[in-house]
Amino acid sequence: MVKKAICLISGGLDSSVTTYIAKKEGYEIFALTFLYGQKHKKEIESAKKIAKSVGSSKHILFNLDLKKFKGSSLTDDKLKPEKNHRLDEIGNKIPSTYVPARNTIFLSISLAYAESIDANAIFIGVTSTDYSGYPDCRPEYIESFQKMANIATKKSIEGKKIKINAPLLYLNKSDIIIKGYKLKVPFINTWSCYLGKDKACGKCDSCLLRLKGFKEAKIKDPIKYESIPDWYN
Amino acid sequence: MVKKAICLISGGLDSSVTTYIAKKEGYEIFALTFLYGQKHKKEIESAKKIAKSVGSSKHILFNLDLKKFKGSSLTDDKLKPEKNHRLDEIGNKIPSTYVPARNTIFLSISLAYAESIDANAIFIGVTSTDYSGYPDCRPEYIESFQKMANIATKKSIEGKKIKINAPLLYLNKSDIIIKGYKLKVPFINTWSCYLGKDKACGKCDSCLLRLKGFKEAKIKDPIKYESIPDWYN
Repeated sequence: MVKKAICLISGGLDSSVTTYIAKKEGYEIFALTFLYGQKHKKEIESAKKIAKSVGSSKHILFNLDLKKFKGSSLTDDKLKPEKNHRLDEIGNKIPSTYVPARNTIFLSISLAYAESIDANAIFIGVTSTDYSGYPDCRPEYIESFQKMANIATKKSIEGKKIKINAPLLYLNKSDIIIKGYKLKVPFINTWSCYLGKDKACGKCDSCLLRLKGFKEAKIKDPIKYESIPDWYN
Repeated sequence: MVKKAICLISGGLDSSVTTYIAKKEGYEIFALTFLYGQKHKKEIESAKKIAKSVGSSKHILFNLDLKKFKGSSLTDDKLKPEKNHRLDEIGNKIPSTYVPARNTIFLSISLAYAESIDANAIFIGVTSTDYSGYPDCRPEYIESFQKMANIATKKSIEGKKIKINAPLLYLNKSDIIIKGYKLKVPFINTWSCYLGKDKACGKCDSCLLRLKGFKEAKIKDPIKYESIPDWYN
C-alpha cells in the first residue's frame, strides 16, 4: 500500500523542497495550503503550481481567519513587516511577521486531515537555522508536538502513529536550495517575498534570506526582483 | 491588572459551566466559539446566550471548515450519529461523532487568541468521565498539550505561560450540573443534543448523558425534549 503524506505547501522555497522530499521518499502527496489572511496572495498561486508539478493527489485550500486575532504584520493590515535592508540585523529578535501559534494551528489541522484519510505522515518545511527567530520552528517544539499528537487521535489509541516530518530542520537556506536543485524543484514557481507585488521586493527579511541562500549555493535565483542588494551580484 | 481567559464555549452544558467557573475565579472572559460545520447550529445560539449572560468582554465566532475532511458524523452529511437508546451501550467504543483532532485544533486556535491579547489562561470544558471515549478528553492529553504550548509561543520564550484549565476533567455529569447550579448557570440556555431540532431528541448519546446527569444530581433539566426515556421520570 502506498504511504500517504500531508504536505503543507505555503508556496515558499522551504515547503516546496519539503514536498519534493516527501515525493522522493515514495509518499502519495496530499497538499494543504492555509489561506490565513496573509497579504501576499501570490504565495497561494505558487502553492497551486507546486502542488500540481509534484503530482499531488489532492490540494486542499483551507480558510483560516487569523485576522480575527491581532498582533502580526502578516495578518494585521495596520502593521507592516520590517525592512531590514541589512542581513546582520535579521534574527536578533522575533519579527513582526510572527503569527501567534501559527505552526501549532497548521500542524493541528494537518493532523485532522491525516487522520481522516489514514495518512502516515505530515511534512512541514520548518527550519531552525536562518529562521528569523520563530519559536515554533525549533526542534524541541516539533518534538513536543509529536508527543502530543501521539496521544491526541483515535488512530493513536488504535496504535497508529502519524509522524511529523521536518526534513529541513537542521539545514540552512543554501543547503535547502542545493537539495531542491537536485530534486528538480521548479524554483521559478516559488514565492518568498512578504509583499505581494508582481516582482519580489528584494528588501524584506524573506527576500534577503532567499537571495543569500542562492548566492551561497552558487545557484541563480530564477525569479524577478524589484531591486537586488549590491552584495548579491 | 485583571487576569484574562479565553473560554471555549460550544453552547453545551460542560463549556457553559466551565466559563462560569472562570468568571468565579476572577477572570475577564473572552469567549470563543467554533463554527465547524456541525449540523446543530442551535448550539451556536446557545453559545451566544451564555457568552452574554456570563458578561464576556468579547465573543469571537471562528469559522473552521472541517467539512473538508471526512470521517465524523458531526461534520459529514452522509453519516448519522448513533442513537443508542440504552445508556449501557455508551462509551464502549469511540463514536462516529468523534471529529479528528478537534480539541487539538480548538486549543491551538485558542492559544493564538490568548497570545494575541496577552491572556493568562484558556478554559476548556473537557471531561474524562462520562466522556464517550474521545482520546482528546483525557488528562494525559491536556497535560501533553500544555507542555507543547509552553514552548510554542513568542510569549513562552519571554517566560510567560498560558495555562490550559480543564476544571471538569475529573467530574462526572451530575457533579458538573451541581457545580453549575451553584454558580447559577442558566441551564435553559444550554444545548446538548447532537441534532438541531426545536426540541432536544432525548435519544442521542449526548441527550442520554445529560438526562442521566440531571437525574443523578436531583435537579430538573429545564430544556424541552421530544421524548424522554422511561428511566428519567
